[in-house]
Amino acid sequence: MKRILLFFCLFPLFGLAQNTDSVFIKKIADETLLHSDAYENLRYLTKQIGGRLAGSPQMVQAEKWGAKILKQLRADTVYMQECMVPHWVRGGQDKASIVSTNGKKINRKLDVVALGNSLGSKKGVTAEVLAISSYDELERRKSEVKGKIVFYNAPFDPTNVNTGKSYGQTGIYRRNGASRASKYGAVAVLTRSLSLGTNNHPHTGTMVYNDSFPKIPAAALGLEDADYLWNTCKTNKYVTVSLNTYGYFLPDTIGHNVIAELRGTTNEFITLGGHLDSWDNCEGAHDDGTGIVQTMEVLRVLKTLGYKPNKTIRFVLFANEENGARGGEKYAVEAKAKNEKHVLAIESDGGGFTPRGFGFTASKEQIEKIQPWTKLLWPYGVYELVQGGGGTDIAPLNRALQTPLAGLDVDDQRYFDLHHARNDVFEAVNKRELLLGAINMAGLIYLVDKYGF
Amino acid sequence: MKRILLFFCLFPLFGLAQNTDSVFIKKIADETLLHSDAYENLRYLTKQIGGRLAGSPQMVQAEKWGAKILKQLRADTVYMQECMVPHWVRGGQDKASIVSTNGKKINRKLDVVALGNSLGSKKGVTAEVLAISSYDELERRKSEVKGKIVFYNAPFDPTNVNTGKSYGQTGIYRRNGASRASKYGAVAVLTRSLSLGTNNHPHTGTMVYNDSFPKIPAAALGLEDADYLWNTCKTNKYVTVSLNTYGYFLPDTIGHNVIAELRGTTNEFITLGGHLDSWDNCEGAHDDGTGIVQTMEVLRVLKTLGYKPNKTIRFVLFANEENGARGGEKYAVEAKAKNEKHVLAIESDGGGFTPRGFGFTASKEQIEKIQPWTKLLWPYGVYELVQGGGGTDIAPLNRALQTPLAGLDVDDQRYFDLHHARNDVFEAVNKRELLLGAINMAGLIYLVDKYGF
Repeated sequence: MKRILLFFCLFPLFGLAQNTDSVFIKKIADETLLHSDAYENLRYLTKQIGGRLAGSPQMVQAEKWGAKILKQLRADTVYMQECMVPHWVRGGQDKASIVSTNGKKINRKLDVVALGNSLGSKKGVTAEVLAISSYDELERRKSEVKGKIVFYNAPFDPTNVNTGKSYGQTGIYRRNGASRASKYGAVAVLTRSLSLGTNNHPHTGTMVYNDSFPKIPAAALGLEDADYLWNTCKTNKYVTVSLNTYGYFLPDTIGHNVIAELRGTTNEFITLGGHLDSWDNCEGAHDDGTGIVQTMEVLRVLKTLGYKPNKTIRFVLFANEENGARGGEKYAVEAKAKNEKHVLAIESDGGGFTPRGFGFTASKEQIEKIQPWTKLLWPYGVYELVQGGGGTDIAPLNRALQTPLAGLDVDDQRYFDLHHARNDVFEAVNKRELLLGAINMAGLIYLVDKYGF
Repeated sequence: MKRILLFFCLFPLFGLAQNTDSVFIKKIADETLLHSDAYENLRYLTKQIGGRLAGSPQMVQAEKWGAKILKQLRADTVYMQECMVPHWVRGGQDKASIVSTNGKKINRKLDVVALGNSLGSKKGVTAEVLAISSYDELERRKSEVKGKIVFYNAPFDPTNVNTGKSYGQTGIYRRNGASRASKYGAVAVLTRSLSLGTNNHPHTGTMVYNDSFPKIPAAALGLEDADYLWNTCKTNKYVTVSLNTYGYFLPDTIGHNVIAELRGTTNEFITLGGHLDSWDNCEGAHDDGTGIVQTMEVLRVLKTLGYKPNKTIRFVLFANEENGARGGEKYAVEAKAKNEKHVLAIESDGGGFTPRGFGFTASKEQIEKIQPWTKLLWPYGVYELVQGGGGTDIAPLNRALQTPLAGLDVDDQRYFDLHHARNDVFEAVNKRELLLGAINMAGLIYLVDKYGF
């Protein structure tokens, strides 16, 4: 009750301050919409550098480019934070086809991509397919698995308006399906791509093996081909598929978080970031080129407006989100070792679409306290500040230092049409949607810097 | 005060009813997301029929197709409401080029499209260009206009987050620029396309002549070419452009509003619609194929759920929004002649993007009364019910019968990238964003049918 009373007592004061705040946030918005480099920076990152998995030459190039841009933006300091990253290599052009149905030879190609971190086979795998739709079915039919390619065909639930919920529900097959099937003697797995798209592009993404079982090849099928294979399996007794993937690991290698600071006058920090790495089968535009260039834009706009922060603002291009999350881990370890006080960490890793809100990993009280900020961000698209959210790269900071987290929530209807697929390209990003994300993050940072969190 | 007291007295009851309402709206959403034909209907309309300006053979085809679909959806009745529509024809492939600068011959093509309703010239126009940025400048430099092609280069203001506001501010040059310049002796006008896009596609759209002045050719340039011509004019004393457009009018012809009804038990009506016509230089996907297939989807979902309305719901595919608005006029005239009581008219004509709200032409009291509905639509993207909105096709109903209006407000950042341009195609529409619009309109109709407005 004390908190609530205090909140209402402060409200009139806050009302007065809101005018100053809305004026400053409008300045942020105008400057961004008029003069941002974010779209052209994204063009360079996606078109000149391209896909940039941890350990790849493109990722080294991206780190250098990132540091160069942050220096050009006149950050108070720019430095590389070294961390060891996994070094997975696709190793070849993934291929799959249906080779026979009921013993009759055919050759129907399937559009396929090896899952990230999966291991290929030198000669490929050719085997009968067991098509199932869930782990429940796998368990019921475990006696049929031996020697087969298990095909998990678990579609996204289209009735989830929040597409991230579907990703959470269905992602288990991509992540753990290989070892779950290998346990019963499967020789490879195919998964239905984690998508709601109206195309046939296959979507990769990270998987993990359970060391107790053989590490079998694993690949994802485009949705049309997943439907085709499913129907083929349902109308034929025996369906044989050939799968060639070539993934392997090189030893862990050196990667870097690229970090810039705008120094404050107190010993507190606010962290803002996205991840610089991307999958190798696309340009990594929405995932997460947009988070990177938005992070740069927030620095640019605050510098351009001559903003002098109270808290030190860290702009972090994280090293390795996609297949290891080692960049975020390293950042948290260093922050803890230095006993840094991080007031809030913000990540943009949901695509460069029109913002709708921020989701927080924070207490209910903290979120209630900041509700008046909604009004300030509303003109730029953010209409809700809610519990639940953050980002893979900043999550370790919460675990290590209990730092509250915020994730930029965007209109997510298009995200899984292109996530980890070849159509995640520069052309899929709208300049203004991208900029609105940067505006709202700059606005949130300004408010947290001024009022705390 | 009486109203406010009544409102709060009703609130607990409404709270109880809300549960029933949220259950029914969830049913609408699930049915739509699982089984809608809207996306495939849009594919047919855009790919098989294509651009469909009033009076064109494609528009006749679209009317027949529309009636067929509405019948298949088992409307209680489907009929054609005849109206006379303008019959403008583009007449040829619009062309423009810079032919000389400072008397030195060059041949730099410009990507150009004649404005809708503009008249072409048999032999084309070749003349010096006067590049200006506003009507103020036109008035100041009116003595320089005679014999020239006036080029209006008024860019969208990028700091308007609401892109429709920019369209309103800058649209005056497309609409009236020809006659304003012709008054001072101009021989043609070029306008900067009404767009914020990052491409060079020129955008057409309707224009009107003032009968007091010669009717000179008028065309729009793509943004890159508008910038190029502007810079050329600013760095050269004389710039000569050649423009060939061929537009002409045939006599007014017969068009139809295609109307379906779901009959209620009272003598009240709710109207829902979009416009079936589109410009001829594109597929008319977002403008307004999406409004058409959403209208059909609302009928489908209400029929499928066995909904028995209190009020008669009219589903209207309007005949001629783009270059005459005659369909909407006719609909209002007929409604007035029959003394129909229309409770609310709803239009979707802002593109098939993710919904954000509804904008109403209604009293402040009416909008206050329906605020609790926000909570019911929130899960499907609609978070605000605000004053200001409607649609060109339903506006006459408000003028004739004071019918309140509602327009579906969507995320509008991408709309003017493709509005009236060759890239307004099927592929630019996301299936789920399209369906969310239909869900919210069906939800609003359900609430208005049950509680009134």
